[in-house]
Amino acid sequence: MTLNSIKVEDSSCNATETEAVTSSSMQSSGVHKVCLPPYRTTFQKLRQRLSEIFFPDDPLHKFKNQTGLRKFVLGLQFFFPVFEWGPLYSFKLVRSDIISGLTIASLAIPQGISYAKLANLPPIIGLYSSFVPPLIYSILGSSRHLAVGPVSIASLVMGTMLSQAVSYSQEPILYLQLAFTATLFAGLLQASLGFFRLGFIIDFLSKATLLGFMAGAAVIVSLQQLKGLLGISHFTNQMQIVPVLSSVFTHKDEWSWQTIVMGVSFLIFLLATRQISTRKPKLFWISAAAPLVSVILSTIIVFLLKSKTIQTIGHLPKGINPPSLNMLHFSGPHLALAIKTGIVTGVLSLTEGIAVGRTFAAMQNYQVDGNKEMIAIGLMNMAGSCASCFVTTGSFSRSAVNYNAGAKTVVSNIIMAATVLITLLFLMPLFHYTPNLILAAIIITAVIGLIDYQAAFRLWKVDKLDFVACLSSFFGVLFISVPLGLAIAVGVSVFKILLHVTRPNTNVLGYIPGTQSFQSLSRYSAAVRIPSFLIIAVEAPFYFANSTYLQERTLRWIREEEERIEVKKETAIKCVILDMTAVTAIDTSGIDTICELRRILEKRSLKLVLANPVGNVMEKLHNSHALEAFGLDGLYLTVSEAVADISSSWKTEP
Amino acid sequence: MTLNSIKVEDSSCNATETEAVTSSSMQSSGVHKVCLPPYRTTFQKLRQRLSEIFFPDDPLHKFKNQTGLRKFVLGLQFFFPVFEWGPLYSFKLVRSDIISGLTIASLAIPQGISYAKLANLPPIIGLYSSFVPPLIYSILGSSRHLAVGPVSIASLVMGTMLSQAVSYSQEPILYLQLAFTATLFAGLLQASLGFFRLGFIIDFLSKATLLGFMAGAAVIVSLQQLKGLLGISHFTNQMQIVPVLSSVFTHKDEWSWQTIVMGVSFLIFLLATRQISTRKPKLFWISAAAPLVSVILSTIIVFLLKSKTIQTIGHLPKGINPPSLNMLHFSGPHLALAIKTGIVTGVLSLTEGIAVGRTFAAMQNYQVDGNKEMIAIGLMNMAGSCASCFVTTGSFSRSAVNYNAGAKTVVSNIIMAATVLITLLFLMPLFHYTPNLILAAIIITAVIGLIDYQAAFRLWKVDKLDFVACLSSFFGVLFISVPLGLAIAVGVSVFKILLHVTRPNTNVLGYIPGTQSFQSLSRYSAAVRIPSFLIIAVEAPFYFANSTYLQERTLRWIREEEERIEVKKETAIKCVILDMTAVTAIDTSGIDTICELRRILEKRSLKLVLANPVGNVMEKLHNSHALEAFGLDGLYLTVSEAVADISSSWKTEP
Repeated sequence: MTLNSIKVEDSSCNATETEAVTSSSMQSSGVHKVCLPPYRTTFQKLRQRLSEIFFPDDPLHKFKNQTGLRKFVLGLQFFFPVFEWGPLYSFKLVRSDIISGLTIASLAIPQGISYAKLANLPPIIGLYSSFVPPLIYSILGSSRHLAVGPVSIASLVMGTMLSQAVSYSQEPILYLQLAFTATLFAGLLQASLGFFRLGFIIDFLSKATLLGFMAGAAVIVSLQQLKGLLGISHFTNQMQIVPVLSSVFTHKDEWSWQTIVMGVSFLIFLLATRQISTRKPKLFWISAAAPLVSVILSTIIVFLLKSKTIQTIGHLPKGINPPSLNMLHFSGPHLALAIKTGIVTGVLSLTEGIAVGRTFAAMQNYQVDGNKEMIAIGLMNMAGSCASCFVTTGSFSRSAVNYNAGAKTVVSNIIMAATVLITLLFLMPLFHYTPNLILAAIIITAVIGLIDYQAAFRLWKVDKLDFVACLSSFFGVLFISVPLGLAIAVGVSVFKILLHVTRPNTNVLGYIPGTQSFQSLSRYSAAVRIPSFLIIAVEAPFYFANSTYLQERTLRWIREEEERIEVKKETAIKCVILDMTAVTAIDTSGIDTICELRRILEKRSLKLVLANPVGNVMEKLHNSHALEAFGLDGLYLTVSEAVADISSSWKTEP
Repeated sequence: MTLNSIKVEDSSCNATETEAVTSSSMQSSGVHKVCLPPYRTTFQKLRQRLSEIFFPDDPLHKFKNQTGLRKFVLGLQFFFPVFEWGPLYSFKLVRSDIISGLTIASLAIPQGISYAKLANLPPIIGLYSSFVPPLIYSILGSSRHLAVGPVSIASLVMGTMLSQAVSYSQEPILYLQLAFTATLFAGLLQASLGFFRLGFIIDFLSKATLLGFMAGAAVIVSLQQLKGLLGISHFTNQMQIVPVLSSVFTHKDEWSWQTIVMGVSFLIFLLATRQISTRKPKLFWISAAAPLVSVILSTIIVFLLKSKTIQTIGHLPKGINPPSLNMLHFSGPHLALAIKTGIVTGVLSLTEGIAVGRTFAAMQNYQVDGNKEMIAIGLMNMAGSCASCFVTTGSFSRSAVNYNAGAKTVVSNIIMAATVLITLLFLMPLFHYTPNLILAAIIITAVIGLIDYQAAFRLWKVDKLDFVACLSSFFGVLFISVPLGLAIAVGVSVFKILLHVTRPNTNVLGYIPGTQSFQSLSRYSAAVRIPSFLIIAVEAPFYFANSTYLQERTLRWIREEEERIEVKKETAIKCVILDMTAVTAIDTSGIDTICELRRILEKRSLKLVLANPVGNVMEKLHNSHALEAFGLDGLYLTVSEAVADISSSWKTEP
């Protein structure tokens, strides 16, 4: 078997790489040089690295080569997307936006009240939060389909974290103060993540982690709603599954059969409408209208029954959001709690908002700038905290309804806010007889969709460690606590990255006849060994965390190959080629290991050569003078060139 | 420009991969199939993964195909390396081992006393620790050159950590109890890391981290020795640079000129001998003998002077190690401290011992089994804690002397222990007049070599982030504390791995004429673009942490390429090829991103194909059914095949 010998004129490296040219131009001809990347100063490298970290999307590219006025207009559009779509807004779009706005309002009002209850806040706060934040988002936001307002997960987390220190029923003012302060910190965190372009931090909450987390939260939330569905008045403030379940069963005497019958009926009704809309997306309006219909129906029933055993919302004040700037407190014993709650709810609501925005943007093929969205959501929460609102973001369920109802722009949020305004001004007394059980049923219907066992099964099939991350956040949330559950899941995800680096794949490659391609012998039966050569591909960066492993593993590959050769009586190995194509980075420990490996093999009369080191690896090998040890013929552009050149050198000097 | 068209018979995949064959055999001929790795069950994969994690070196490979008796002998040799080298031990080796044993003993005795002082322990403990542990190591250890005994870093750390809670001068018994208990826990940790084959954990202390840490510790230790060199009796127990320096200058009245003159003279003498031996390794015996000579000389001088101002060691008890099993305490308020101290000193001493063992093994081309060494060092410390010894490991300085003095086997440790035994039994009264200043001078001379500013400079040149890790451990140790300094440095190292994954390199590739090789356009000026194609190489695994980035970055590459094409009026892009060679792993988020990218590009009438996915990536793409979306011609073995096949398909169907 012979390789096609490669004969081409030497392709020279870039002019700036004179140094590399000198060190490798003495290689025998017919072999291509391995070039260094173009020379850059430390400062240039740092600048490029920082711009990759913070500005990977090159957000200012539109501003290049523009006149001053155009730049100003672009800047205005950049900071206030309303100026981008506003001038293009036409009467044709209004109709769609009004329909979708009214549709999400019919969903937002009952959900707002319910989620406020979930956060242990007065129901009216949920309506306030569906009024101011959507208006602010409509000026700053760049997603066209995001329906803004309170969401289940963030409300639940805020409720649990605050309730563990302060009880709303005992200290309502303090509780409200903490909720608004936490909202402010959530907004601050979100806006600054966006402003400092650190949005990638939320990427560390992987989809698998969120899947488990949301399912766990949904289970807890659903179980907590048994309070409303069963009519229990004394219920635990804790969030773990054990105290919640024990609360349900220790208060059996408080169960009320009227509440149970009515609650379960409405729950079945809501779940059925949800099922219909899931099956036929065109009938989305059925599940969209169902909560409001249920609220109206149940209110009428309770009003007619005048039953004392069914708990109702009771009196709600009329009027728009009162200012709450004076409620924000930056001192006192509970400040740390407010900050912590703000961080956790801020991260969670941000993750949901960004994910929802991206999902619908991808469907309609437009771009959502993650960092800009973060600033929008952050400012909306900061403003909200001064106007009696708690944490809000883009809700997945309402955004989906918004999208299906044909929303074209963020104007649907304005329509929704207007509807909420009318409700706040005139319709509040109507909620007096609305039973708590209907809120519980609405919450359960909303969160039940978060339990996506099919996705979890897909995780298991595709990636076992993703599944472990998912499970650990699920059980972490159920049995420990929300922040710890999330932390464990992030830990598992990071551990997965580290494990991949610490124990990378290594493959012995063989030649695929008729090509210049070398592939894994265990994967391609067509691949054949090349006598006298052992070609090892390393599939990870060469780091301190794996340098010992890679050295041992390489020596083991050599030992196993030698044992195999002894049994089969083939030609002994004379040269080991390390295919560095997938070695995407190297550090000083890695360089030392490669040099030491070369020394060890040299003592055994084995030659070690490197094939195809990538740019920055090549640069580091060069800077550390490790290449000098490898000599002039220790470095090749491809494995096939290395094999061809080394075998021909053996022929000429036997 | 045309590519060499590749015409070969289809090389078929392994028989087990029927599924993959079916899905890709319909590709046009002349193109090679991308195979799946051989099918394995989840259990087989887990087994293989676990064996790679815990047994990468296949430690039992010698046992394969052996008879029962041979297996027993091999097992004995495996657990007690003494049975491996013992039978081969010859009289020829004895001479070298005796010479090197005596040499290291002459170094070990003064260093043992000094390091015990460093740990705030009575000097005799240092001698005890140079007697029992080396004997145990000589049975269990597999390094031939390791000289076992107390070491500076671990002694220092133990001294500081314990002294912050308990003062030896006030509660000597409690302090001793804590020291022995910490030693036991250090040994337990070390042995269990080895036993459970978790030795790779110490790899996370990268060389850069250790470099900074050791330099920081050396600075602190040297400054602390000013206590002895200046004759100060009231000195801080703290370890940070600020309190140490203020201690030196606030006690100016305690400075004694006799101590200073004598101390500085001996320090200069010791540093000079060290310098000589560094320059000429053959004269290693000069620096090896210098400490003992200094001790003898200074003791005689002090004895003759009978000066009261020079502090001396004082009375030392004769006799071998008393048992200390009754001193081990597993309860009480200080247990947590003992465990913490044990963990930190255990990890540090283990790191030093393993690194030293590996260094000298590499020099003589033999293998040291890391996990076995850990068990040996761990058991030696566990036994030591029951025989009045504190933490011991292989010392770098003494092992170097041992190596240079020609040690052939671990017998030199036995000779050293025997010499220490004689000292303990008969020579203890001679140390009565040994001044503390000489111990300080010995410690400074020993640790000054740990400050390797040249290596730090190399780090700066080769890898800036390694340098940051080094600096942060250096300043962390100097200004905060040893455990926190180490934790920060490990954090920086891990952050570096995460950063590489979060913001990976992406390159646009071009074709190098005359080859089938595609390389970065920015690095190879010879590389040329192929009209209608955009070839993007991703240099990292496709993970949740970078999936958003990679999607944005790919879209930006496309945008920039389209802008360039518009300016130059070239052919528009019709196909984007993702070169997956260096994408060494993928998770569910990564798969979703690739599918979404394909959808986005499809809407823009751009084709997305993948080239050369590695084994496990291919497997996951297949399991997740993502490949089905790519269709039959969306996957190629190499970039050049993709380009050739797609361009020819365009020619046939324009």
